[in-house]
Amino acid sequence: MPILTLTTDFGLKDGFVGTLKGVIWGIYPEAQIADLSHAIAPQNVLEGAYALWRAYSFFPPGTVHVAVVDPGVGTQRRPLAMRAGMWYFVGPDNGLFTPVLADAEKNGWPVEVVHLTNKDYWLPGVSHTFHGRDIFAPVAAHLAKGVPLIELGQPIHDPLRLAMPKPEKTPTGWHAHITVVDVFGNCATDLPAAAIASAKGVTFRLCGRSPRLPSGWSGGI
Amino acid sequence: MPILTLTTDFGLKDGFVGTLKGVIWGIYPEAQIADLSHAIAPQNVLEGAYALWRAYSFFPPGTVHVAVVDPGVGTQRRPLAMRAGMWYFVGPDNGLFTPVLADAEKNGWPVEVVHLTNKDYWLPGVSHTFHGRDIFAPVAAHLAKGVPLIELGQPIHDPLRLAMPKPEKTPTGWHAHITVVDVFGNCATDLPAAAIASAKGVTFRLCGRSPRLPSGWSGGI
Amino acid sequence: MPILTLTTDFGLKDGFVGTLKGVIWGIYPEAQIADLSHAIAPQNVLEGAYALWRAYSFFPPGTVHVAVVDPGVGTQRRPLAMRAGMWYFVGPDNGLFTPVLADAEKNGWPVEVVHLTNKDYWLPGVSHTFHGRDIFAPVAAHLAKGVPLIELGQPIHDPLRLAMPKPEKTPTGWHAHITVVDVFGNCATDLPAAAIASAKGVTFRLCGRSPRLPSGWSGGI
Repeated sequence: MPILTLTTDFGLKDGFVGTLKGVIWGIYPEAQIADLSHAIAPQNVLEGAYALWRAYSFFPPGTVHVAVVDPGVGTQRRPLAMRAGMWYFVGPDNGLFTPVLADAEKNGWPVEVVHLTNKDYWLPGVSHTFHGRDIFAPVAAHLAKGVPLIELGQPIHDPLRLAMPKPEKTPTGWHAHITVVDVFGNCATDLPAAAIASAKGVTFRLCGRSPRLPSGWSGGI
Repeated sequence: MPILTLTTDFGLKDGFVGTLKGVIWGIYPEAQIADLSHAIAPQNVLEGAYALWRAYSFFPPGTVHVAVVDPGVGTQRRPLAMRAGMWYFVGPDNGLFTPVLADAEKNGWPVEVVHLTNKDYWLPGVSHTFHGRDIFAPVAAHLAKGVPLIELGQPIHDPLRLAMPKPEKTPTGWHAHITVVDVFGNCATDLPAAAIASAKGVTFRLCGRSPRLPSGWSGGI
Repeated sequence: MPILTLTTDFGLKDGFVGTLKGVIWGIYPEAQIADLSHAIAPQNVLEGAYALWRAYSFFPPGTVHVAVVDPGVGTQRRPLAMRAGMWYFVGPDNGLFTPVLADAEKNGWPVEVVHLTNKDYWLPGVSHTFHGRDIFAPVAAHLAKGVPLIELGQPIHDPLRLAMPKPEKTPTGWHAHITVVDVFGNCATDLPAAAIASAKGVTFRLCGRSPRLPSGWSGGI
């Protein structure tokens, strides 16, 4: 039983997420659908990319991950569907899948990307503002149901990639980036664990903007 | 595989929504259940009516839409189940289904409404404060499972309707209403697109209360 | 079709909840999964215990309730699975199941508790910080799928219990506790309805901290 996930900046108030599920179940009523996050900051593609990336690989092979953080909706930006390794991805061509593509390269996974052009798999009458409902949800449902990727559009080889920040070695250590601050206040960085021999004696500095530290934290952190 | 949806003012903190799902799955474990919104402002029937209305028609035929925004729970207001066109609706008789009924009239869909009176399809021991759990969820599950509408209660022909605001033609244009401001700040109005020949040269005015405009917006909007 | 529920302090922003579903569906793709609450205040075990307790019995027999409010993750606190009456429970041994255990005692339900020690039913490579994903979700999925409780670890008889507040009879009435203030502002107390012959003439006093009363409330409440 294939599974779909949804990652969006839609929030949970307006009913947009439920509408995606209605469209998916209209095509494939047996599908399981998991919400990853709908609290991505509006139009923040990088935040959406990280949220999807943290979770996608914990889903079983064949899962179709739909991601819609789509500031370019209604413009010429391409709608995409993609296979990377054992998972499928559907969403706008704006860099949302950059970290997944990096995983694929690192691990030597096969990658296929198509520009969605076959309107047979869309809702009739596509709107200018809600491609999540009119293109991405129906395409994802058909993909989960077994329609081959190549049926959905034209193969492409240049999906847009974000210039992701990367950790850099400095003379005295590493210059890394916080990729997410979670609900508990944990900060995840892009520094691989292997870069640090041991946590002992490691000093962190928060550079750039002056942070508001929680009470009790010393300035040297 | 029939599908149910839930629209409430319950929020997601207290576990009320999960409880509805427990009751539904106790009766019909295979049912698919989509959340439309649980962030309707407490007891705001009009907001709930619009939220349900925006989404219901994107669900497949046979879907049972449960809506519980129910300031009159525990009073004499009637519990209802209804078929309008290809969809079913379950909830209190307080106007939540007004826009759906308007769609039915406009499109000539058949409508059947029953006053829920058959307690065989309720949880035993109905509370005074949680008819969503004790009446609407079990009735909806039975309806999805195939129990005929007429088994659930007495036919009625006077479901309560809200006096919905309507756009009015004025000498210089239209007087319309914003029906929802979504998470992106988009404002939807009740003015049909056909009322405006072209977006060119159209001027909007926000009447009534003085609005706080986002910075950069001019006063004439 | 067995059902699982999730009660956590993970919030809905970071994708942790979706990740639990990915792990569960990787083991048992047909499972139905209901969210009870993910808005438990971070690490507030008592609040999580009450949220689970309010909802668990509305789910059908055989439901597996997963609760992860887990300030002790990464320490020596034991991971548990438990049967109490007709339901299963999986989570940390920190008192989350105290009210359920009290129900079991009151009603004479059979209770079996195991300390989860059989790593065959965990994800490979357990982290120090996310036992919800690595231990509790996979164990719950296996349990729902039919693995006997005793397969999962060692029987124990001393699950940790919270010292729950209890209502006390005083010379002039009762000293009770508000257990939850819900989204509507309703306050539930731990005073059984049977303790009060009739609501007539009953006076409430909010003791301890001086409450901020809503406007219009008199001081004597």
